[in-house]
Amino acid sequence: MCGIVGVYCENESLTPHITYYSLFSLQHRGQESAGIAVVGEEEVESYKGMGLVTHVFDRKTLEGLKGRLSIGHVRYSTTGTSRIENAQPLLVKSRAGSIAVAHNGNLVNYWQLRRKLEGEGRTFLTDSDTEVIAQILATNLLEKDIVEALKELDSCLVGSYSLTMLVNNTLIAYRDPLGFKPLCIGKTDYGYVIASESCAIDATGARFMRDIKPGEAVIIREGELEFVKINESKRKAFCVFEYIYFARADSIIDGRSVYSVRHNIGRILARESPVNADIVSPVPDSGTTSSIGFAQESGIQYLEALIKNRYVGRTFIMPEQSMREFSVRIKMNAVKSNVEGKRVVLVDDSIVRGTTSRKIVDMVRAAGAKEVHLRIGSPPIIAPCYFGIDMSTREELIASGKSIEEIRKTINADSLAYLSLKGLLDAIGVDKRMLCLACLTGLYPLSVPGEKCVE
Amino acid sequence: MCGIVGVYCENESLTPHITYYSLFSLQHRGQESAGIAVVGEEEVESYKGMGLVTHVFDRKTLEGLKGRLSIGHVRYSTTGTSRIENAQPLLVKSRAGSIAVAHNGNLVNYWQLRRKLEGEGRTFLTDSDTEVIAQILATNLLEKDIVEALKELDSCLVGSYSLTMLVNNTLIAYRDPLGFKPLCIGKTDYGYVIASESCAIDATGARFMRDIKPGEAVIIREGELEFVKINESKRKAFCVFEYIYFARADSIIDGRSVYSVRHNIGRILARESPVNADIVSPVPDSGTTSSIGFAQESGIQYLEALIKNRYVGRTFIMPEQSMREFSVRIKMNAVKSNVEGKRVVLVDDSIVRGTTSRKIVDMVRAAGAKEVHLRIGSPPIIAPCYFGIDMSTREELIASGKSIEEIRKTINADSLAYLSLKGLLDAIGVDKRMLCLACLTGLYPLSVPGEKCVE
Amino acid sequence: MCGIVGVYCENESLTPHITYYSLFSLQHRGQESAGIAVVGEEEVESYKGMGLVTHVFDRKTLEGLKGRLSIGHVRYSTTGTSRIENAQPLLVKSRAGSIAVAHNGNLVNYWQLRRKLEGEGRTFLTDSDTEVIAQILATNLLEKDIVEALKELDSCLVGSYSLTMLVNNTLIAYRDPLGFKPLCIGKTDYGYVIASESCAIDATGARFMRDIKPGEAVIIREGELEFVKINESKRKAFCVFEYIYFARADSIIDGRSVYSVRHNIGRILARESPVNADIVSPVPDSGTTSSIGFAQESGIQYLEALIKNRYVGRTFIMPEQSMREFSVRIKMNAVKSNVEGKRVVLVDDSIVRGTTSRKIVDMVRAAGAKEVHLRIGSPPIIAPCYFGIDMSTREELIASGKSIEEIRKTINADSLAYLSLKGLLDAIGVDKRMLCLACLTGLYPLSVPGEKCVE
Amino acid sequence: MCGIVGVYCENESLTPHITYYSLFSLQHRGQESAGIAVVGEEEVESYKGMGLVTHVFDRKTLEGLKGRLSIGHVRYSTTGTSRIENAQPLLVKSRAGSIAVAHNGNLVNYWQLRRKLEGEGRTFLTDSDTEVIAQILATNLLEKDIVEALKELDSCLVGSYSLTMLVNNTLIAYRDPLGFKPLCIGKTDYGYVIASESCAIDATGARFMRDIKPGEAVIIREGELEFVKINESKRKAFCVFEYIYFARADSIIDGRSVYSVRHNIGRILARESPVNADIVSPVPDSGTTSSIGFAQESGIQYLEALIKNRYVGRTFIMPEQSMREFSVRIKMNAVKSNVEGKRVVLVDDSIVRGTTSRKIVDMVRAAGAKEVHLRIGSPPIIAPCYFGIDMSTREELIASGKSIEEIRKTINADSLAYLSLKGLLDAIGVDKRMLCLACLTGLYPLSVPGEKCVE
Repeated sequence: MCGIVGVYCENESLTPHITYYSLFSLQHRGQESAGIAVVGEEEVESYKGMGLVTHVFDRKTLEGLKGRLSIGHVRYSTTGTSRIENAQPLLVKSRAGSIAVAHNGNLVNYWQLRRKLEGEGRTFLTDSDTEVIAQILATNLLEKDIVEALKELDSCLVGSYSLTMLVNNTLIAYRDPLGFKPLCIGKTDYGYVIASESCAIDATGARFMRDIKPGEAVIIREGELEFVKINESKRKAFCVFEYIYFARADSIIDGRSVYSVRHNIGRILARESPVNADIVSPVPDSGTTSSIGFAQESGIQYLEALIKNRYVGRTFIMPEQSMREFSVRIKMNAVKSNVEGKRVVLVDDSIVRGTTSRKIVDMVRAAGAKEVHLRIGSPPIIAPCYFGIDMSTREELIASGKSIEEIRKTINADSLAYLSLKGLLDAIGVDKRMLCLACLTGLYPLSVPGEKCVE
Repeated sequence: MCGIVGVYCENESLTPHITYYSLFSLQHRGQESAGIAVVGEEEVESYKGMGLVTHVFDRKTLEGLKGRLSIGHVRYSTTGTSRIENAQPLLVKSRAGSIAVAHNGNLVNYWQLRRKLEGEGRTFLTDSDTEVIAQILATNLLEKDIVEALKELDSCLVGSYSLTMLVNNTLIAYRDPLGFKPLCIGKTDYGYVIASESCAIDATGARFMRDIKPGEAVIIREGELEFVKINESKRKAFCVFEYIYFARADSIIDGRSVYSVRHNIGRILARESPVNADIVSPVPDSGTTSSIGFAQESGIQYLEALIKNRYVGRTFIMPEQSMREFSVRIKMNAVKSNVEGKRVVLVDDSIVRGTTSRKIVDMVRAAGAKEVHLRIGSPPIIAPCYFGIDMSTREELIASGKSIEEIRKTINADSLAYLSLKGLLDAIGVDKRMLCLACLTGLYPLSVPGEKCVE
Repeated sequence: MCGIVGVYCENESLTPHITYYSLFSLQHRGQESAGIAVVGEEEVESYKGMGLVTHVFDRKTLEGLKGRLSIGHVRYSTTGTSRIENAQPLLVKSRAGSIAVAHNGNLVNYWQLRRKLEGEGRTFLTDSDTEVIAQILATNLLEKDIVEALKELDSCLVGSYSLTMLVNNTLIAYRDPLGFKPLCIGKTDYGYVIASESCAIDATGARFMRDIKPGEAVIIREGELEFVKINESKRKAFCVFEYIYFARADSIIDGRSVYSVRHNIGRILARESPVNADIVSPVPDSGTTSSIGFAQESGIQYLEALIKNRYVGRTFIMPEQSMREFSVRIKMNAVKSNVEGKRVVLVDDSIVRGTTSRKIVDMVRAAGAKEVHLRIGSPPIIAPCYFGIDMSTREELIASGKSIEEIRKTINADSLAYLSLKGLLDAIGVDKRMLCLACLTGLYPLSVPGEKCVE
Repeated sequence: MCGIVGVYCENESLTPHITYYSLFSLQHRGQESAGIAVVGEEEVESYKGMGLVTHVFDRKTLEGLKGRLSIGHVRYSTTGTSRIENAQPLLVKSRAGSIAVAHNGNLVNYWQLRRKLEGEGRTFLTDSDTEVIAQILATNLLEKDIVEALKELDSCLVGSYSLTMLVNNTLIAYRDPLGFKPLCIGKTDYGYVIASESCAIDATGARFMRDIKPGEAVIIREGELEFVKINESKRKAFCVFEYIYFARADSIIDGRSVYSVRHNIGRILARESPVNADIVSPVPDSGTTSSIGFAQESGIQYLEALIKNRYVGRTFIMPEQSMREFSVRIKMNAVKSNVEGKRVVLVDDSIVRGTTSRKIVDMVRAAGAKEVHLRIGSPPIIAPCYFGIDMSTREELIASGKSIEEIRKTINADSLAYLSLKGLLDAIGVDKRMLCLACLTGLYPLSVPGEKCVE
């Protein structure tokens, strides 16, 4: 997962700040690196760095990035290698001029495309599929205009790709025809803001216009905004995990409030898997909204069993072997006065490997809870994601090889229940043919080698 | 406000990690600087740096701080000047040997003491009252043992002072006789942990023993723990703001669960100042617990009107004048689907200057709320704090010069109500003679020049 | 100018240290950035950074760069833009595998080659001609073996190019057929060291074998060393400025000791342009060796008129306008006791813009010298270099537009004399058809658009 | 050894730059830390950091240090512990106001004074004798004016102490009555510059006025300069090693040109210990000037046998055991063409431990020299320095336990000769009662416990 931004702003010195604020609001989509590219006086310039947006950019750097058009990116590391070379936007020079690309998604046919390009003697400086996209676009632009070049690019990519790009003086945003990753646009007093989520539109004081449609491009040149249909697909594949976990609760994605979806999840979960208990509590922060829904539907008192340390960062270290066991305790702590002698329902959004769940259940039990019941706001994750969410391999997914009862025993809960797939679809309220449910069903919305397709 | 820690651990290499984890759990008490002092092989060593605990210490630094005794400190900047010289623990050498001091509190008679010491030709390298404490203690130790030296130190200090100190091979913790700032002790498998709050005891896997009593010292030498009464006062002055805002909700302070107090505050507030509304929402994060109590007592639905950006840090910059207005919007955003057309009750812990409250009310209104009612979990703050909480001057306190109705108009709420003093005392459940309520009453628990005393 | 290195060493953990020491000895060839690439267990890895070798690499980084084959680079910034993207070795992935390239030189037909590659839709991430070399080599390797690919690469490059490269498990060193930039090879107990100058061979304790011949490649695979003739040219074009200024005095380049050449220069200069004077002094450090020769030939006493501040670095700042005039004074200072009342001969290696020369003459005069005579160890520089030495444009070269008498007046010397071209050739002792003398004659050893060719 | 500076300048924004340039010219006196204190608008401020002057200060920091009075310091680490706490100027607050102290020297009775102050209950934050000086001065200023306070300070200090100090709006420079460390003053267009060496006066464009006399203070208040005699001693103790090694050759110290002294040393050494040889060469850089003198007196050709790597820094690392032997080779390299088949005289300033000398002799021999003769420009160092030069203990001094013939064998030279004490005194040209010769004679100019006094 990553977050992308595109900005057009008549006021040249305001542009980088709008991009910065947007990226800052998308920080939850990626904390590994951040970058901004801008069409400056003469050509496209970029600035990138490792770490959080507030760490990478200071006032002076931002003020040096003036221009009317800008794109930005926050990166979520999907592999172990964390290198500045992989930070985006990727900026290349070509016959067509400067091309900067910010990409959210993952190409399923990356190696196929790269091998083909390498077969022409081409070289690659990064390990990122974004460089493949940039090279193909540069080639297409040799003899085609931007719209045709984009169509040809789209025709050879397989996978998920929400993109914001600068080609000299033109800003392009594009969302793949299945629409895996969200992308939307808003209007400011001085221009436009395109971003992965509407919370970034809000953060800049812009007015939300609408979602970019799957297969649709937004092209901004000389201040003129144009929506262009590049490709079309009846089937859509909106990532269901944006609703379950990834997006910020105040975002509205493809017409559905993320907060409402999660609240519905909690309500439906309470109906599907009721439990006699004294309090309902979230696993903070991911279970907060659904636990509120669960409490309200069940009538059980909502009370926080766990308090999270707000300062937990990525850089935290686990030095001594004997201290490892405290790793969860340092991130969150049980509120004894709330759980002592109580039957506690913990609500979380999902279970991936199950190791953290076990530690949390143990912690609440150690704080005096009489019973600990776990309710999960999604069906079991049984299959890997090939579209940009780092969900480990099948072997690491606890639900891939174990029954629910086995999982319950492993994590030491008194009871465990997952939301049903139907319940999830009801909570979101869209047809299942609109969603990518691959990680929950094992059926993929497009052809992935070695996996079953949805139809 | 600051956070302090003291650790005795038989396992020398474990000691710095226990101190580190404790400090990390007290990070909310101070983000400006962090430091650890340890009794190493030969003498007391220290390491300090600006910023968060995870930023200041890395594995290598920690591993270099071996020893059985250690103290730690996180600092909250109360003045504009943020300098490494003021970071603690303060480590000095004296006739009595090495003395390291970590201090949470504020001396009312600091300048008086300093002028007296300067009158002897003494010099000061910092602007901190901690250096005054260290110099007086060093002088007292010339001819007295630790207990007597501590008694003499206590007799000349006026103000609040929870301390952890190392004097060569002895660890000392001391809490002033009025007990302004919290201090408690826990037991590990290898020794003891003393910390400002019980959440730090929990984070290290230690078992909570009890609060250090006001006027009581803990002395650990050669592995032996001793509680010593240094001074006694019938009156106590536990800081009421620890319960209202400052402490972490999972801490238990002087026998009262902070979470329960805040939950009670919400319940009592709902009874004292009911309102017809559709949803109750916290101002995140400070109003979360009391808003849950308010919702449960009032029967109004609990739903989050505002989502906070989890990545907001201290280093955030506000560059362009025209972007200033978005300062709150970047920190939190309204959830449109929750507030549209609704009558919203926002619950916050307190109001200091009122500027942020105004922006939040406006934001919720702009997101479509029909009415916005503000409920505050404490009485109005009308007087400054001289005991270590940075609460501005009287002129800056909105409630110091304005009636509640005037405040309501300023912050543009449909209704505004504060918790009564009686309600607050009921929520905490202790006699008012146990608490420092100076900021709410203007009556101070000890003599402060220019201010009225409580009796 | 840059410095390049290639290392084969059987002892995998020794390799990076040999590369590091070699680079460190070539630091005078470039201080902007430093980098090392190594064939690790699985693939080629690289580490690069801005600044000096000792700044970029620490023990831990070096120890992580194990392998049998390695190349290294120190970069001299020839343009204003100092960016990490331009640091070398450049590491790319291609059909042929990993290719790392370290380049000393400059391609005259860079833009022509780049435009051609861009015409195929190719993209570029750097502004460096090294990326062009890497792309062409990758293309050639599609269907050719290394020797043939190298021949084809050589056939399309125009300019200067001493290269060390890694292609998977093969180390390649190549020197262009005119041999502009030096390149030599030495033998260690565990393998080989290839470097720009012999001083780097010495620094690693290796035994000097010989210079790489122009048009010759060194190929090391599976421990086997092979010399391969790739191209041949009767004419050579050894850069004359390596002898005059650039190389370290303890290096032996193409069979001639740099120290001896400079000493000869001083002797011949003394014969060509004698002067009645009391002392001969170098302009430190560039004039040291030739001034010793001048003193010995003339019989005038050698005494230092100027002492250089050994700590002058690149990062030095010149803040106030009124302090600018001291810029030279901070770098060096006159020794009053040596120059007072004396007739002083200052010997320098060359004059580029003349501004520093003026300040030095003034400083020596201000310290009390009766007369200041300047002797220059090279003919006037009248034409720009297109082969990698940053010598400014014709407009900036003081000797390009002015007669020697005009220059003398400008720099305020009592007399000024340059070495003759014949004198320089005698000092070096090789046929002029072996050398590139373009900057001194305006005649270029290969075709440069807008310039005259040597024949 | 350290370098100190004091500046008065009417132009407030020029002051920090003059201090900076002065310090930069004294960089050879200390590379561990650098600092500047300035009397700003309201009070004395300071800025300090680890490393070189150019590293510690950037333009912005300097521009923030405006004021008319300023002092500066570069520190040479005499102990293993390199800590920012020990960086100077030391800035303390006292009854008398702000006191900043920069100190070059070493107090022999440091612990005695410190124990006395500790006996009053005083505390110390640093391990430096400078804090003792500051505390005593602060005490003296309680009831005395600056001159009397200085007299009282002087009366209790034993050791070497050249000082620059700020006491509120007064700049004070003071040199101890024996005058161990140099201190001189110059005049600028806007005020005065006081510095350890005259090269710093030159670097700022100031005109040298004179040396500060031993026992003399310079006091600058409200723009008025005053010289005040504080103490007097017939005997002086100018450090002989300033002339031999420490000072920059372009400085004039106590009326003697350092360059001339070293040149004389070489001449006398040639007369005292002649040798049949082909070339005379310095061990760079410390032997340069004396080797020139040696060559001229002996008539043997001056030619550099060794070239030094100009980029060797303090941060250099010696990783692999097997690479240790190259440690000298990386710092300098032999010029084969100069030494092959030759009888070489190497001239160095002194021998401390002898380990480097051995490596250098071996290196020149390995490069082909037929004979290697070592000539040392000082008598053998047989006793430690207690006045601020870090010369190790007696056990580590090679000349302390070995005869000259034994040393010759150890370092593998064909012949070895030291300068005689008489030769050294002749070279300097002052009465021996003016100099501290303790390290060469074992007789100390003031009473040091366990050592013999000179009279």
